[in-house]
Amino acid sequence: MCDVKKRFGQNLRAVRKSKGFSQERLAYSAGIDRSYVGKMERGEVNLSLEKLYLLANTIGCSPKDLVPDH
Amino acid sequence: MCDVKKRFGQNLRAVRKSKGFSQERLAYSAGIDRSYVGKMERGEVNLSLEKLYLLANTIGCSPKDLVPDH
Repeated sequence: MCDVKKRFGQNLRAVRKSKGFSQERLAYSAGIDRSYVGKMERGEVNLSLEKLYLLANTIGCSPKDLVPDH
Repeated sequence: MCDVKKRFGQNLRAVRKSKGFSQERLAYSAGIDRSYVGKMERGEVNLSLEKLYLLANTIGCSPKDLVPDH
């Protein structure tokens, strides 16, 4: 189960970088704390559905791009 | 944003039924409360990443099948 958070974090980092976002820019654009972005990318956050959509909308990707397969 | 929860709930209900699960069986198999399944399907829950995976693993689908597109 904890693996899910780690794999989500890896996806978030990869998609964020591929879209040219720094952690700072993502945090600012989404209105969340920069340290929280770091926590998510390190797999330390069991984030919510609404946060998932906020991130996807901010980065400009599908929420499904961030969700690991299984 | 609240729409995301509603659309997730609709997906959950559709996939659950397509896999032949009653709400009771899903609740029992996933170890969650039957009333919580109803709440999720009515879009009243901002559920977490780990719960999403628990549901998908229990039903036997990809987590991406449950997550609405945008």
